[in-house]
Amino acid sequence: MSPFTGSAARTPDWKHLGVEIADGVATVTLARPEKLNALTFGAYADLRDLLAELSREKSVRALVLAGEGRGFCSGGDVDEIIGATLAMDTAQLLDFNRMTGQVVRAVRECPFPVIAAVHGVAAGAGAVLALAADFRVADPSARFAFLFTRVGLSGGDMGAAYLLPRVVGLGHATRLLMLGEPVRAPEAERIGLISELTDEGHADDAARTLARRLAEGPALAYAQTKALLTAELDMPLAASVELDAATQALLMNGADYAEFHAAFTEKRPPKWQGR
Amino acid sequence: MSPFTGSAARTPDWKHLGVEIADGVATVTLARPEKLNALTFGAYADLRDLLAELSREKSVRALVLAGEGRGFCSGGDVDEIIGATLAMDTAQLLDFNRMTGQVVRAVRECPFPVIAAVHGVAAGAGAVLALAADFRVADPSARFAFLFTRVGLSGGDMGAAYLLPRVVGLGHATRLLMLGEPVRAPEAERIGLISELTDEGHADDAARTLARRLAEGPALAYAQTKALLTAELDMPLAASVELDAATQALLMNGADYAEFHAAFTEKRPPKWQGR
Amino acid sequence: MSPFTGSAARTPDWKHLGVEIADGVATVTLARPEKLNALTFGAYADLRDLLAELSREKSVRALVLAGEGRGFCSGGDVDEIIGATLAMDTAQLLDFNRMTGQVVRAVRECPFPVIAAVHGVAAGAGAVLALAADFRVADPSARFAFLFTRVGLSGGDMGAAYLLPRVVGLGHATRLLMLGEPVRAPEAERIGLISELTDEGHADDAARTLARRLAEGPALAYAQTKALLTAELDMPLAASVELDAATQALLMNGADYAEFHAAFTEKRPPKWQGR
Repeated sequence: MSPFTGSAARTPDWKHLGVEIADGVATVTLARPEKLNALTFGAYADLRDLLAELSREKSVRALVLAGEGRGFCSGGDVDEIIGATLAMDTAQLLDFNRMTGQVVRAVRECPFPVIAAVHGVAAGAGAVLALAADFRVADPSARFAFLFTRVGLSGGDMGAAYLLPRVVGLGHATRLLMLGEPVRAPEAERIGLISELTDEGHADDAARTLARRLAEGPALAYAQTKALLTAELDMPLAASVELDAATQALLMNGADYAEFHAAFTEKRPPKWQGR
Repeated sequence: MSPFTGSAARTPDWKHLGVEIADGVATVTLARPEKLNALTFGAYADLRDLLAELSREKSVRALVLAGEGRGFCSGGDVDEIIGATLAMDTAQLLDFNRMTGQVVRAVRECPFPVIAAVHGVAAGAGAVLALAADFRVADPSARFAFLFTRVGLSGGDMGAAYLLPRVVGLGHATRLLMLGEPVRAPEAERIGLISELTDEGHADDAARTLARRLAEGPALAYAQTKALLTAELDMPLAASVELDAATQALLMNGADYAEFHAAFTEKRPPKWQGR
Repeated sequence: MSPFTGSAARTPDWKHLGVEIADGVATVTLARPEKLNALTFGAYADLRDLLAELSREKSVRALVLAGEGRGFCSGGDVDEIIGATLAMDTAQLLDFNRMTGQVVRAVRECPFPVIAAVHGVAAGAGAVLALAADFRVADPSARFAFLFTRVGLSGGDMGAAYLLPRVVGLGHATRLLMLGEPVRAPEAERIGLISELTDEGHADDAARTLARRLAEGPALAYAQTKALLTAELDMPLAASVELDAATQALLMNGADYAEFHAAFTEKRPPKWQGR
């Protein structure tokens, strides 16, 4: 949503992801259905770079992250990632793990809401990608598995030990990250891991509908809501209240607030401009 | 609950709120029922000043915040607040938004528990007032709507982006603050937004009963419990444990702890003094 | 789990607790069944010292904390603790309350998962001990009561005002700590206070089964998961992601990660070494 662009050109072709932008909505598809969309080095790098690039696209106001085929994402590819990392030295391992963390930070910090459309499996890094999104729109086939300990790694991967307790509480988060067992849709909904449960097969549609609604609405208000939710997890009460005051003072000078009042007075729906 | 009073006189008359104090319980009523208790500049200012004043009244040990008529509070008045803020300059907008945040800080930081008695709508600033309270006693008609984005503003208003994730988790909080949709009593109870669900029409009575119980009980213990809950949201574990230790050491020198032991030994109910 | 041992000898005999170590699992039993396992000064001190000692035992990979007889733990003994603290001076009171807090920190910070096996009452300090554990395996008879205010003390005791909001959210935590009312198993499960609900009378068995599974599994991965969950409650997102990256880079050099890949490739179950 930034109007400031510099010398960097738009990447013409994303080799490891499906990317479509239309009507303010970017749809990013994990598109290796024959491998349950297992992530490769290229897919992580593309996610990191794509989110940075979209963050400076004025036109993007919401993003849908979806998976092609039978599931959302089975996580890092056992052959291409696990096999390859076993041959890496310390510096390479840090580079890889920093990259995956940068993807999560990019999802939390990009200036538009991110909606994960989840059907079938969201495992490992796939579960954390969904967790980092602002909304998880899921159908009854969805199951989340933070299975890092099952491959001998820490459940705290890509910020999961930070994010999950803040979404479902420390008790559930400990159980999920420590044991790596699948959480099916009914439990995920009960503990607050799902934002919207849809009918079977409708997660993608519902995510697109939500994204369009967000893109057509007061987009700056949504962007600031997301920014404050992200920032205030790490801020004390007094500072949060001050940040809220400054933010609202800004937005009260914005076009959409005036438009709301005009529309309300004229008893018509507002025409949001997103600023 | 502070015994220290200085030169400042007690305000004889609160023009924008109903205020009654009896038996240690302050009852504050939003009393513009013809406007669903929509808040005005005067009501915000009175809430801010009243809470500061009551915080230095030795006699006040619990506070009930209720709404007269069909609902709890519909939020900032569209004509008096939204219309007026559209004509404000930057400094005025900051002053207004700081004031509303000060009300929330005052609710969180006053030295007695605050009980919101919610029936019908608690919208916008009304929803945040209820959120800031220590208890939300609600009847089945209660519905909460953090509808800031619906008027083109940030969902992070008056500390909502700080408080709501800490009450219902980040997933639900994102959905509620971003979309501004109403949360009805059953969902509010399910996600932890309601402290006590009453029978229809009984929220005010139940809130008063709870307030009396708190006022008649070990009030200093309650006050410290509230203070530590508020403070430790912003503190690390080690410091929290140290603060708890110092607090309990203090209270173990207090009258009520000795009284508990005496009453227990004599097999009679304790006579709490609140210190 | 530390392999580094110095001059300090292993304590041959714990007078105030039952302690057994077998197959990587330490089982610690509160064993005053005639007093519902009410805690004494000696029991607190033994818990503090035992957890420190076990933390430097290479062999301990999981710990079960259980209660003998009709309940888990009724909290500090009314006669031995409350009576005695009434005669203490300020420095002694601080020493006592710091010790109880040190027990909670030791539970949160020891390098192995702690599983509380809860049946019957877990009250006062007993409720906080269970709360500090990584897992609460409970049977339907379990009930938790943070009854500090009922004896005239602060609900923020031993870190409860820090931990409980992070487990069940601020709304439930305020209600539980302020009022001290019992939370029975169904509600405890609904609000996220129970990790695993068992059949009646099976909490101890289920806790042992879980402990054995953790001890036989990738113990270093579990230990790091716990350490990151504990640390990242107090860390911002960016730092958490960096800590996760460094931790995974470390574990990707470990034996268990390589073993997972070998086992996966050879289509056999992994033989975890815990490092």
